[in-house]
Amino acid sequence: MPAKASDVKLLREYVHKGWEFHIIDMLHDLEPVEIAELIEALDEESRGKFFMLLDVDTASEVISELSSASREDVLDDISDTDLARIVEDMDSDDAADLVGDLNAARAERVLAAMSPKESSDIKSLLMYPEDTAGGIMQRELISAHQGATVDEIVAKIRRLCSEIDNIHMVYVLDNKGVLVGTLPLVNLILSKPETPVSQIMDEEPMTVPVDMDQEEVAQLFRKYDYVVMPVVDDEGGLLGRITVDDIVDIIDEEATEDMFMLAGAEEDILTSSIMKNTTSRIPWLFVCWVGGVLITFLVNRFETTLSQLVGLAAFMPVILGMGGNVAAQSVTLVVRGIATGLVSSSNFVALAGKQLAVGFMLGVVYGILLGCVAYFLYPEMIRVSIVVALAIMNSMAVAAFLGTVLPMLFFQIGKDPAIASGPFVTTAMDLIAVVSYFVIATLLLF
Amino acid sequence: MPAKASDVKLLREYVHKGWEFHIIDMLHDLEPVEIAELIEALDEESRGKFFMLLDVDTASEVISELSSASREDVLDDISDTDLARIVEDMDSDDAADLVGDLNAARAERVLAAMSPKESSDIKSLLMYPEDTAGGIMQRELISAHQGATVDEIVAKIRRLCSEIDNIHMVYVLDNKGVLVGTLPLVNLILSKPETPVSQIMDEEPMTVPVDMDQEEVAQLFRKYDYVVMPVVDDEGGLLGRITVDDIVDIIDEEATEDMFMLAGAEEDILTSSIMKNTTSRIPWLFVCWVGGVLITFLVNRFETTLSQLVGLAAFMPVILGMGGNVAAQSVTLVVRGIATGLVSSSNFVALAGKQLAVGFMLGVVYGILLGCVAYFLYPEMIRVSIVVALAIMNSMAVAAFLGTVLPMLFFQIGKDPAIASGPFVTTAMDLIAVVSYFVIATLLLF
Repeated sequence: MPAKASDVKLLREYVHKGWEFHIIDMLHDLEPVEIAELIEALDEESRGKFFMLLDVDTASEVISELSSASREDVLDDISDTDLARIVEDMDSDDAADLVGDLNAARAERVLAAMSPKESSDIKSLLMYPEDTAGGIMQRELISAHQGATVDEIVAKIRRLCSEIDNIHMVYVLDNKGVLVGTLPLVNLILSKPETPVSQIMDEEPMTVPVDMDQEEVAQLFRKYDYVVMPVVDDEGGLLGRITVDDIVDIIDEEATEDMFMLAGAEEDILTSSIMKNTTSRIPWLFVCWVGGVLITFLVNRFETTLSQLVGLAAFMPVILGMGGNVAAQSVTLVVRGIATGLVSSSNFVALAGKQLAVGFMLGVVYGILLGCVAYFLYPEMIRVSIVVALAIMNSMAVAAFLGTVLPMLFFQIGKDPAIASGPFVTTAMDLIAVVSYFVIATLLLF
Repeated sequence: MPAKASDVKLLREYVHKGWEFHIIDMLHDLEPVEIAELIEALDEESRGKFFMLLDVDTASEVISELSSASREDVLDDISDTDLARIVEDMDSDDAADLVGDLNAARAERVLAAMSPKESSDIKSLLMYPEDTAGGIMQRELISAHQGATVDEIVAKIRRLCSEIDNIHMVYVLDNKGVLVGTLPLVNLILSKPETPVSQIMDEEPMTVPVDMDQEEVAQLFRKYDYVVMPVVDDEGGLLGRITVDDIVDIIDEEATEDMFMLAGAEEDILTSSIMKNTTSRIPWLFVCWVGGVLITFLVNRFETTLSQLVGLAAFMPVILGMGGNVAAQSVTLVVRGIATGLVSSSNFVALAGKQLAVGFMLGVVYGILLGCVAYFLYPEMIRVSIVVALAIMNSMAVAAFLGTVLPMLFFQIGKDPAIASGPFVTTAMDLIAVVSYFVIATLLLF
């Protein structure tokens, strides 16, 4: 959601005139995410100036909400010590993301300027790959020893609640730090102060292993409707927790990524400049172009066939187009099915068989239809009807089958299934369809 | 996630042999969503039989997790009175969804067999359109009068906590039922029993108007990282609450819907039978086919041009393909941008201009490249190079522009922007590209 135009106009004026007091006044009623939107709307030079007017508390929340471009503008203008204060105040997962994006020298300086506890938390988080449970978890949580009582836990919450947001659960640990239970806040409210926590906790809690892929974590949240989940190591030791707001972002990102990959584009074309937008689209389109040129050369090889009946060329677009559309449908089906968990290796063979059958049936339907059109155009040459009918049938069945199998194949070898889409599959499909068409025509017609 | 194959095999055997005791034993350790997955894996006749073995408590949770096909199988086998008991036990939002899907006569019978309070809750929810805040909210929540004290609220939570899941917040109301504040559970824990709620509540809470579109609600949750939000009427009266797990489902559904619509397919092709799958794809593909046939006739009109240089036909696939790919990129960009809030009417004109510029630049790049290929094939006819270069430039610029503008146009008139994709835009684009190509060729070549 872009910021309100009137707010942006006012803010630009204030920044331009250096009216700091007005700016601070304006920010008073805004949420951090709204302030971040205002920063996005400013030009590059003003962003840093404006950001420096925020207090550390606000700054630490605003900076997590900024796009990477604006964040860089802002970071350029802050001193390492100021940045250390801001990072200390951030949630550890966001802090680790930010520090991880700094260049190595600056990251070291910032970490050195922080309190030892905070900096070691961040360093430990930086060890986990970004797209795993460890990479998205935060260290801030309330834990208690299994021997503790309700009033001891309440005292601990009182001590920590200003630093920790969204306390939904208390995590109960044994002597070795292994998670043995979880305690929803509501259980805490309903129990007497002297109750031992081991009596009111939920035992055998669901946990996320620290090396689980973030997409799998998202599927767990989706499936079990969790709001928060604990992250553990191989021995069951508690390492951190993941909250649902981060999962919502991941689900969004993965869907965006898949959609753009399906269309053969990079995600950043939404925010990038004309030049960057153009250059980032060139490689993808180049694959498509090379395929197209290959088709050009192949069609030229059939010049004799074509010159005997020029009208054959007129059927090319519909034969290619129908195959392309069927392929797009099938690829989308598999990519989305894998992302939402509906398609997996256990039901894949059945799905591929089904898709081949569907493609074949669609091919028969449209083969007959296109055959009729050809008969209308060339009533004296019934064989033209047969050729185009066979060509479109072949194109659609191949498209349905490859469009289903290729994404799954990519997935099985650990690649993103959406790669099997856009330029690549379309181009391969076009090649197969065109060559088959002219081979069939050459064999049957002349 | 499909259920484990070994569990499914075992269950099929038990159901087949009628070993109810074994089945009940097997279900003991499973979550409702896992039991639902087992039901999905059974054949149609066994589903109802198996479902009837569940106790009301479990049944009410399992039934919300079933796909619509399995749910119908199960509902066919339950008596109206049993169904009434199950519906009473469901969360009101899920209950309303289920009752809303029954035929009118059965819905009335089931509602009549329920307790008056529960049935009136459901009736009131059924009045709101399905895809608005009212359609996704639930009535179950903890509210308190602004004059209440902490211990009174704790007593109320104790009374209701077995019926209400996920109590994150207490909603504070004035005499008229208007929401005046919210009270996170943690505030309750940290306050003395005699504290008046008005002293510890957060005032001016964020609310969702009951008629807000569900996509907008999802954007609010995303933006502000909410776990739960109260739903209010025009006067600020509290009507219900929306929890983040439903938002996760909506975000998922909307993304799936957009992706399938972009590919010109219905969502249900993932789960439907071969026949249904085929027929559901026929109409979409028909649009594409009609466009393709139209192109066939148009190309035929240029037979004279084509017969003078048969090789012109060979460039058609690459000219159409490049336009189609650019269009797919641009449509995806706008559709996803609208869904995530990055594209709106305020920044749209700038975006459309940018996309036209990008399309033009891409067209120049690939125009020059294709011109070179044409020169290689027809070194003696430099004009062929000019014709194909102009044709691909035109095709790509038009594709980038229309691919950006059409989805936005659909959005502005209240339609799904993703409609402007798949068969429709592709076909229109192909038509424009082919006709331009042959018009340019006819004018410049002969």
